[in-house]
Amino acid sequence: MLSKITGGITAPQGFKAAGVHCGIKKNGKEDVAVIYSTVPAAAAAMFTTNQMAAAPVIVSRQAVERGKARAIVVNSGCANACTGEQGLADAKAMAHQAAKALNLDDNEVLVASTGVIGVTLPMEKVTAGISQAVADLSESGHEQALAAIMTTDTFPKSCAYQYSLGGKTATIAGIAKGAGMIHPNMATMLCFITTDAAVAPELLKLALNQAVELSFNMISVDGDTSTNDMVAVLANGQAGNKLIRSADSPEYQEFFQALKTVCTELAQLIVRDGEGATKFLEINVTGALTFADAKQAAMAIAKSPLVKTAFFGQDPNWGRILCAVGYSGAKTQPDRTSLAIGGLTIVVNGQGAAEFDTAKLKDVMAAKDIVVTVDLGLGDAAATVWTCDFSYEYVKINGEYTT
Amino acid sequence: MLSKITGGITAPQGFKAAGVHCGIKKNGKEDVAVIYSTVPAAAAAMFTTNQMAAAPVIVSRQAVERGKARAIVVNSGCANACTGEQGLADAKAMAHQAAKALNLDDNEVLVASTGVIGVTLPMEKVTAGISQAVADLSESGHEQALAAIMTTDTFPKSCAYQYSLGGKTATIAGIAKGAGMIHPNMATMLCFITTDAAVAPELLKLALNQAVELSFNMISVDGDTSTNDMVAVLANGQAGNKLIRSADSPEYQEFFQALKTVCTELAQLIVRDGEGATKFLEINVTGALTFADAKQAAMAIAKSPLVKTAFFGQDPNWGRILCAVGYSGAKTQPDRTSLAIGGLTIVVNGQGAAEFDTAKLKDVMAAKDIVVTVDLGLGDAAATVWTCDFSYEYVKINGEYTT
Repeated sequence: MLSKITGGITAPQGFKAAGVHCGIKKNGKEDVAVIYSTVPAAAAAMFTTNQMAAAPVIVSRQAVERGKARAIVVNSGCANACTGEQGLADAKAMAHQAAKALNLDDNEVLVASTGVIGVTLPMEKVTAGISQAVADLSESGHEQALAAIMTTDTFPKSCAYQYSLGGKTATIAGIAKGAGMIHPNMATMLCFITTDAAVAPELLKLALNQAVELSFNMISVDGDTSTNDMVAVLANGQAGNKLIRSADSPEYQEFFQALKTVCTELAQLIVRDGEGATKFLEINVTGALTFADAKQAAMAIAKSPLVKTAFFGQDPNWGRILCAVGYSGAKTQPDRTSLAIGGLTIVVNGQGAAEFDTAKLKDVMAAKDIVVTVDLGLGDAAATVWTCDFSYEYVKINGEYTT
Repeated sequence: MLSKITGGITAPQGFKAAGVHCGIKKNGKEDVAVIYSTVPAAAAAMFTTNQMAAAPVIVSRQAVERGKARAIVVNSGCANACTGEQGLADAKAMAHQAAKALNLDDNEVLVASTGVIGVTLPMEKVTAGISQAVADLSESGHEQALAAIMTTDTFPKSCAYQYSLGGKTATIAGIAKGAGMIHPNMATMLCFITTDAAVAPELLKLALNQAVELSFNMISVDGDTSTNDMVAVLANGQAGNKLIRSADSPEYQEFFQALKTVCTELAQLIVRDGEGATKFLEINVTGALTFADAKQAAMAIAKSPLVKTAFFGQDPNWGRILCAVGYSGAKTQPDRTSLAIGGLTIVVNGQGAAEFDTAKLKDVMAAKDIVVTVDLGLGDAAATVWTCDFSYEYVKINGEYTT
């Protein structure tokens, strides 16, 4: 049983955070955050699979290999991606500055950046920002830290839960940012999770991989896999539970469910805040031969600009959904395929349903939250993907991003 | 040497065409076309790889296997896709009705459809339309036939050339329609090519495969591979050249260059008429290890909504181009990658070029035709893909398509 609580990423015991404005963002909002565990913590992280991985991804990927970390330093407004040698030096300098101020080794600090690609960081401002953020660290600093990781997000994305873990009360919390260049592949955009559970590093990594596969890797806003994706979790053991060492233990399951809940909630919030989104779409593909097939078909629907604009315009052009399934690469057979939108049966085994009526479908498509279900009729595997529609506002936001 | 001529698909000797309005389209425009060779012709065609292939694709795929055909019957306004058994019967009936009126066997007629998916054909109207079109067949009917295959196209797409083939004057011509659901995979939307060259069926097929691979398979409007894609060529030998039987002959090369010219011109016209397009983008990827890598990288750029909206908004956010290369799956190395837009060098070996300046890039992006060049710096393979930008108009067209 998980209970939702307030307090954000500083709700788990032994965590502090801060967010300050150092001058990267022109609008005066927070742009540097530090998240800190007051005691040593197990750490796991997943990163973008984009080969143009940003400098902070390269630095953090190496740092987290030890399975331990104490702090995360983040900036928004500049992605520090496609910045060559200078970018790498800047990302290392960020880790070093935070480590020095916190009395840690450099490799106990993870670094993350988000914002415009191809621009180097204003390091003088960033250095001052890191000093200020470390000085500001507090157990109530979660809101400022969250504000400091946002870019085109229109609302903050945060959640925190308490649950019973091996007889102790454990807390887990996470923050995330969207809202464009969202098509995760092994990890997504920025997401930071804190927990006071005691978990062995290798099991923390396993749980994160499994949770991300079913949450962040199941969302798409625009099909673009960012250069900067990162999801990191710090587990500092302050809940006092017996260290989780086995994936077969009930405690691992308790912890995994909590982690999966946080990841799924944040992933869905990212989709709800998709750039220009007016609708939240859940795409269920059932009856597939394999999970990979189900996911491939669901992702093809979720990525199709034709499907996404039809939902925006509430145009009952359902054929585009089956068209996307057809080119997805998933094994399908037209005369076995069935389709329902918002509970309305449209196609049964490749034939239009007798009771189908366009007016009803338009009503269903007027809702804000819509479930699309495609049954491939071939096997038992299923997958659920979350996405949003494609609106004029998406074009506007992305036609005017840097200017 | 190819000379551009007028006369459309009835310019080659021995071809007639017609287009009529039978009542599928609500706007009163032509919606049924027949293209006819007065003598037996070699035929080759390529079809969509979408597993939800439309009924006419299934019928035509089988008919063209013999390498011969005399006529093509086409309707617009209804795709006859995702229509089950009824759709298949309707597509066969279309071929049968045209064959009967033309005194041909059913399998000498190819069938094609384009329009809304998931709706069955109004066969009474279609039957009357086919009769009328066969009665109207003429050597000057190319404009009506072309009008009858258009849907959201804003201009007709047609070209015709004459060239010397084995000492004789041969003519080749083609018509095509776009303008959405364009992301060909082995063939695209509808394209019909007529030629009076004498070409053995197996060489016609080879030439078509090669020409399509370098033309229609190198364009993308929105990343959606249609259920109805078809490109077909009829070659009736009326030019009087000696039958082309070998791919090593100079005549095969003469013919192939003419066919490739027609395919490339029509493919580029489809992109220029991409739904809502305001810009024509040529994406060149050079220095790749393989053609497949080069194409994969170029296609990722061409499909990225973030890149496409940036070009629409003339936002000099070039990092999105390298981001797309990074997630494309093509083998890349950031410190070997270079980028130029409209001849302006932006990145050299992963580092921002010293002479780069945002104001100049904005000027370059204001052009209607823009060339983007990415050099991967790893090998000798290259690929060119053509695409368009992503505008408010695309969202409008596709949010209101059926309504």
